[in-house]
Amino acid sequence: MNYSKLSFSRLKSQSLYSQLVKRLEGAIETGELANEERLPSERDLAEQLRMSRTTIATAYRELEARGLVRSHVGRGTFVCAAADPIDGPFAWRGKISAGTAHLSHDPAMRQLMRDVANPDTISFTAGAPALECFPVDEYRRLMDGVLKRSAHVALGNAATEGQPRLRKAIAGYFGAKPEHILILSGAQQGLDLIARCLLDPGDAVIIDRPGYVGAIQTFRLAGANLVGWDIVRADLDELEDLILRYRPKLIYTNPTFQNPTGRVLPLRERQEMLKLAARYRVPIVEDDPYGETYLDTPPPPSLYRLDKYHIVIYLSTLSKTLAPGIRLGWLVASDYVVEQLTAIKQRENLFTEGPGQLVVAEFLERGLFSDHLVLMRKEHSKRLNILNQAIDRHLPRKTLDFTQPKGGLYLWCRLGRGVEAQRLLQHAIVSGVAFANGEMFYSDDAGRQDLRLCFSHVPGDRIEEGIRRLSKAFAALKASPLTRDASAVPLV
Amino acid sequence: MNYSKLSFSRLKSQSLYSQLVKRLEGAIETGELANEERLPSERDLAEQLRMSRTTIATAYRELEARGLVRSHVGRGTFVCAAADPIDGPFAWRGKISAGTAHLSHDPAMRQLMRDVANPDTISFTAGAPALECFPVDEYRRLMDGVLKRSAHVALGNAATEGQPRLRKAIAGYFGAKPEHILILSGAQQGLDLIARCLLDPGDAVIIDRPGYVGAIQTFRLAGANLVGWDIVRADLDELEDLILRYRPKLIYTNPTFQNPTGRVLPLRERQEMLKLAARYRVPIVEDDPYGETYLDTPPPPSLYRLDKYHIVIYLSTLSKTLAPGIRLGWLVASDYVVEQLTAIKQRENLFTEGPGQLVVAEFLERGLFSDHLVLMRKEHSKRLNILNQAIDRHLPRKTLDFTQPKGGLYLWCRLGRGVEAQRLLQHAIVSGVAFANGEMFYSDDAGRQDLRLCFSHVPGDRIEEGIRRLSKAFAALKASPLTRDASAVPLV
Repeated sequence: MNYSKLSFSRLKSQSLYSQLVKRLEGAIETGELANEERLPSERDLAEQLRMSRTTIATAYRELEARGLVRSHVGRGTFVCAAADPIDGPFAWRGKISAGTAHLSHDPAMRQLMRDVANPDTISFTAGAPALECFPVDEYRRLMDGVLKRSAHVALGNAATEGQPRLRKAIAGYFGAKPEHILILSGAQQGLDLIARCLLDPGDAVIIDRPGYVGAIQTFRLAGANLVGWDIVRADLDELEDLILRYRPKLIYTNPTFQNPTGRVLPLRERQEMLKLAARYRVPIVEDDPYGETYLDTPPPPSLYRLDKYHIVIYLSTLSKTLAPGIRLGWLVASDYVVEQLTAIKQRENLFTEGPGQLVVAEFLERGLFSDHLVLMRKEHSKRLNILNQAIDRHLPRKTLDFTQPKGGLYLWCRLGRGVEAQRLLQHAIVSGVAFANGEMFYSDDAGRQDLRLCFSHVPGDRIEEGIRRLSKAFAALKASPLTRDASAVPLV
Repeated sequence: MNYSKLSFSRLKSQSLYSQLVKRLEGAIETGELANEERLPSERDLAEQLRMSRTTIATAYRELEARGLVRSHVGRGTFVCAAADPIDGPFAWRGKISAGTAHLSHDPAMRQLMRDVANPDTISFTAGAPALECFPVDEYRRLMDGVLKRSAHVALGNAATEGQPRLRKAIAGYFGAKPEHILILSGAQQGLDLIARCLLDPGDAVIIDRPGYVGAIQTFRLAGANLVGWDIVRADLDELEDLILRYRPKLIYTNPTFQNPTGRVLPLRERQEMLKLAARYRVPIVEDDPYGETYLDTPPPPSLYRLDKYHIVIYLSTLSKTLAPGIRLGWLVASDYVVEQLTAIKQRENLFTEGPGQLVVAEFLERGLFSDHLVLMRKEHSKRLNILNQAIDRHLPRKTLDFTQPKGGLYLWCRLGRGVEAQRLLQHAIVSGVAFANGEMFYSDDAGRQDLRLCFSHVPGDRIEEGIRRLSKAFAALKASPLTRDASAVPLV
């Protein structure tokens, strides 16, 4: 068959891949493509038709799902005009959309979520505050009152924007108008809404390097081209160069007790960043889960607070100050942006869980949150001290290199002596301790010698045992032969 | 400037719109496009460049956001090389992605969500069960126990797939393996995950006509081409014709106490539908929020239960049996599909709220849900009777035509005498009563004389007053002059 003779419409209403499927299907029906004939490789056909390889792969998968071709690994794709027996398992693989086809191969954060599920592992992996500070009794009492007195409001259908009472309480706490607050089912939802609202496939996004793994994954899902801005150097000239070179659709940054580095962007740099963003009209997404987690001294004002250009979308959450399990985040933005994001949120999960919203609203109204934060900061300081002492005691000098954070939940460490975090983690898991390895915070495969320890989540009396296990992992790593192909070793 | 000389790469890595933006930006910089020069209309340029109008519009908006052009309604788009003063409001409109640019203009369901917020309106609009049956005391007691005994599990980071205990409880209740259950933050999230996982822009989806407004909106957001299958006739030959003609990526159906019609697809048709889907390898998304809401007699087995081909993704929720505010839904699918959807859910909101999951798990384990359903069915029957009597008493014969439902939450009505539901609704809102007008259940502007009344949500002692107000609305409508341009009248 002469593939180069195939013609395609470039109108948006007909996707290239579906046109290609139709052409090939037609060719199989007419016999132009004979039974058991081998199709060109995806790469060859992509070049011949000047289409992307993804388009070809999607079309081949669709044909496979319809039972018209069969792929054999290493041999290629063959026409298979005879129908499959109907009782075989359904070929779901052939039905996955082009944009999400390879998602399951990116296991970093799912692993992070699973690690914490093993009760025997001491996990410094996921970011969470000291849950021992969670005001269980207050929360129980408030929940009881909400279910007794406001069952209909809490349990019924509700506004996508959030419960009015919680919007008002957060607006009061944060210092904004309630109509500029959008309640989220976790801050991650905010990232996803923003990505869906602002990004077209191929758009560039400037993002902290290293930066939050959830942001990297969500922007990738939206098809964005991620451009890292070195958050440790935080050079504004470099940022301007990146803006000029990549013309980004947005800048994503976590300027305060940054995840994973713990860094705080100084006031002057904040102001410069805002000026740059305004000059080049690039919106800033300010992710601020950690602003309230300072240990002694409050950080400089948020970008949102400093912004005179209405160019910042501010994102925060209760996951790093109260508890991740209540899944409550919020964003602050201009009316128009809130309206757009609400329209997408409605299609994503209609609205956010009710009882938790009302309990947190009352928690804020009564000033209990501020009391809680004082308690939490004290406990976090204590745990960071214990961690520092344990590292001094159990790990040889220069094993880990890090700067002391002044807030946030993390110790961001560089491994000495060329040790790779991924290999260390394998031994650590065996020893019953876990951490977040550095690669997941980079969109470009860097960070192999970095790792992140969450110092706030593990109870004080377990931290030392965790570091003792880590020192065992170091010893085991030293004794083990070097694995050449690290990618062949599963994460756990 | 000669636009037809512009050249574009069709590689997927460079979107057409961003290439167009670059070309036009370059032309403005070099002066090829002079200051204050008028650009061609979106339609003209689309034809000239053989691109979609959306692509042109997106590029123009991007240029506007960068301050390089200005649009004036009715006059066109003009080059504007002089920079705007920096203290103007930020041009967010220019930053919205192509796929979501027109979302806010589709207000149907947001209106539905807002209607219920006005406490003076008797709302038959949104679908919710009798919240008066909600086991408040049991729920409070269980919540208290969860927070006391399982605070860490409930409040900490957790698996994206759902709390193991709830997956197991639902698996036991539903009759499936726990690993085939994915917990959702509401069933709407399931629709969104499925759309993101399976649909590429332009893919056809066969959908009940009329059908669930949330599904219509979510599939539209994914860029799907919606093909309605008449759910009242439920003609399988027609379904086969549609499959052959449109080659759909999936079939979405709510076969049991269908929203909005209340119809139940008979057993034989279920089996035929499965055969058709298997023959043409089209996955079925079975949306089943209402299976347990039968009033007297249980419906036939679900498609999932009858499916021998593993071709069905089953979706359900506690919103229509327990309460929408707890935002808990689930889906049942094969391992591979659960894995793919989990990867997307992780990017969407990491995981589902914890305390509610554990409370519902215990609720199911103790068999309290079955007790609750018996109570709820009795109350729903009572309310449907009251509604029927009120309609007989207050509305003239032939005002509303409907079939008695045997389950679900809705009375699906056709208005007599050419009355349009949208116009009636305007008067109804003024009279203090609300319903769902028919158009929102159609993807093709049909349904103008249809309306949906939810019979389960309004307490028995308010139903008659609601229908009395509706009869007032009918009278007011009869007395008012015909509004020619219905679209100019706001929804409320």
